[in-house]
Amino acid sequence: MIGVDAMGTDAGPAALVAGAARALKAGLKASIVFFGDERTLTPLIAPHAELSNARIEHCAGVVAMTDKPMHVLRRGRDTSMWKAVGAQKEGRVKAVVSGGNTGALMAVARMQLGMIAGVDRPAVTALWPTPQGRTVVLDVGANVEASEHELVNFAIMGEAFFRALTGKKKPTVGLLNVGAEELKGHELIRAAARVLKEADPDMAFYGFVEGNDISQGTVDVVVTDGFTGNIALKSAEGAARLVGGWMKEALTESLVSKFGALFMMGALKRLKEKIDPSSVNGGVFLGVNGVVVKSHGGADEKGVAAAIEMAANLVGKGFRKEVAETAALVFQRAGNALEAAE
Amino acid sequence: MIGVDAMGTDAGPAALVAGAARALKAGLKASIVFFGDERTLTPLIAPHAELSNARIEHCAGVVAMTDKPMHVLRRGRDTSMWKAVGAQKEGRVKAVVSGGNTGALMAVARMQLGMIAGVDRPAVTALWPTPQGRTVVLDVGANVEASEHELVNFAIMGEAFFRALTGKKKPTVGLLNVGAEELKGHELIRAAARVLKEADPDMAFYGFVEGNDISQGTVDVVVTDGFTGNIALKSAEGAARLVGGWMKEALTESLVSKFGALFMMGALKRLKEKIDPSSVNGGVFLGVNGVVVKSHGGADEKGVAAAIEMAANLVGKGFRKEVAETAALVFQRAGNALEAAE
Repeated sequence: MIGVDAMGTDAGPAALVAGAARALKAGLKASIVFFGDERTLTPLIAPHAELSNARIEHCAGVVAMTDKPMHVLRRGRDTSMWKAVGAQKEGRVKAVVSGGNTGALMAVARMQLGMIAGVDRPAVTALWPTPQGRTVVLDVGANVEASEHELVNFAIMGEAFFRALTGKKKPTVGLLNVGAEELKGHELIRAAARVLKEADPDMAFYGFVEGNDISQGTVDVVVTDGFTGNIALKSAEGAARLVGGWMKEALTESLVSKFGALFMMGALKRLKEKIDPSSVNGGVFLGVNGVVVKSHGGADEKGVAAAIEMAANLVGKGFRKEVAETAALVFQRAGNALEAAE
Repeated sequence: MIGVDAMGTDAGPAALVAGAARALKAGLKASIVFFGDERTLTPLIAPHAELSNARIEHCAGVVAMTDKPMHVLRRGRDTSMWKAVGAQKEGRVKAVVSGGNTGALMAVARMQLGMIAGVDRPAVTALWPTPQGRTVVLDVGANVEASEHELVNFAIMGEAFFRALTGKKKPTVGLLNVGAEELKGHELIRAAARVLKEADPDMAFYGFVEGNDISQGTVDVVVTDGFTGNIALKSAEGAARLVGGWMKEALTESLVSKFGALFMMGALKRLKEKIDPSSVNGGVFLGVNGVVVKSHGGADEKGVAAAIEMAANLVGKGFRKEVAETAALVFQRAGNALEAAE
């Protein structure tokens, strides 16, 4: 049972409904509960045969993109966002997908679901395409700064997340840093690396990676603070879009090149799908005691389907227990190592 | 007169010599002095008719990529890097281009040339292609952290640099930040924005920009600390390379698409040139009291030519005087504004 907060996005409720239908059509085994305005949702759902078993929980309120998180916590109990997350707390749904206000969703999730034991601050994941498949980058937006302790927790959560998502037993993990010889990076990144190396021998910890390693797929999981992660991802997106734009120009710049492009239609279509950002839509709020996936506010049907599939994929994976146990173990070992060193 | 440190790069002295010849052939009006091993350089220079007036200053020593800056300062007086920068101090050359060890070059430049009045720490620039032309990003590697005061200086230097390079009278300047509503960025970035807004009314200060704005060309100059700048640029490079690789695959994946690509050869060649990193080679050390351009250690002939052309372009532009005057004015005004507010 997946809860979908169907309101409060830029693309509108129709994209969320169509996305859920698309995921089910593609083989997803789950029932859907939509949270939102019944009169808006009923006619949107009706045309989709796949959604004949879907339910609606009517909610009168909607969180606006401009609402402050604190305002939503105090006065937003009637919103679709609050009720969708609440349904997970009450066990009526196993995961929640929302395309709404990120800050509010984070606050609502923390307040209603609480945090995994040993984790103080949540991190938001992003998937990034690589020649080998996908790299997970975290944090990409929950925290502007991250302490050494938080970076270690992000590494532990990212590793467990990648394992839950892909089944890979020993995902490789790298800490984002700068590589020039004169720059040794921030002291706290080096300290986090020491803890991971010494206190988490089960992790396939790669060490430091640089910006270009994200797209190269050097490691499965790239760990950084929310400020750097957000800028790295947006810089990469911008560059991919620039090159894509140039490519489009090249393909259409003359009749001859348009003619040539005809022969490549199949190849170009597959290329376009690779670059398509909707295939990597869905940021997971790691650290909260539940499954909460943030879909991009402007995501189309395909993007929403990807986010719902990711949410379903995380249900029942024992991910949170694993994170709590690993974090407890690592910080105990790190503490012992520090004491022994004193 | 441009000094070229011809030693200590990954690509070897031949690339530096060929790059200088290429720049002269393309119309550069300057004479070249090569600093390095005479017996190595003489046969490399001989075949290039453009270099018939070039001189060699023989230097016995070479700075290795692994040398610590401090070691070079103490024991590197016989190196081509030290002597090239020294020749600028003595006025025998007007600018220096080196492809060697970045940290050592920075230390050698600071020690021999000193800093512009009012600037404590240098910043390294990078050029990044955009649909409109080029964006300058700084700092991309001289400082891991930057204070509010340094960010303001980077903005002043970046603006003056863009003006010197392109002739644009009022380059637009943005501070790199994250945009999500729950993240207001680091306090010191906000403080730097306040100073620029209030104390530098002559600057076309745009405010905050995000990672994707770099490739979009939203502003002419993007200001950030060396850690974030390095990661943003490398992430963007990695993404551009990923999309470029996919494109190559698409063009060659079948006989039919190879046939189609034949019709697009001209367009694809122009596309390849746009993506070519050598067209944006050359990081300028802003803040030092001279013109020092770092060419990428692996730059080919074309990349070296671009770096030499940029160095020549900066000679005699009054850039340093302008920076010193603006910085003095801005910090005086900022100080007055602070006092008035107290």
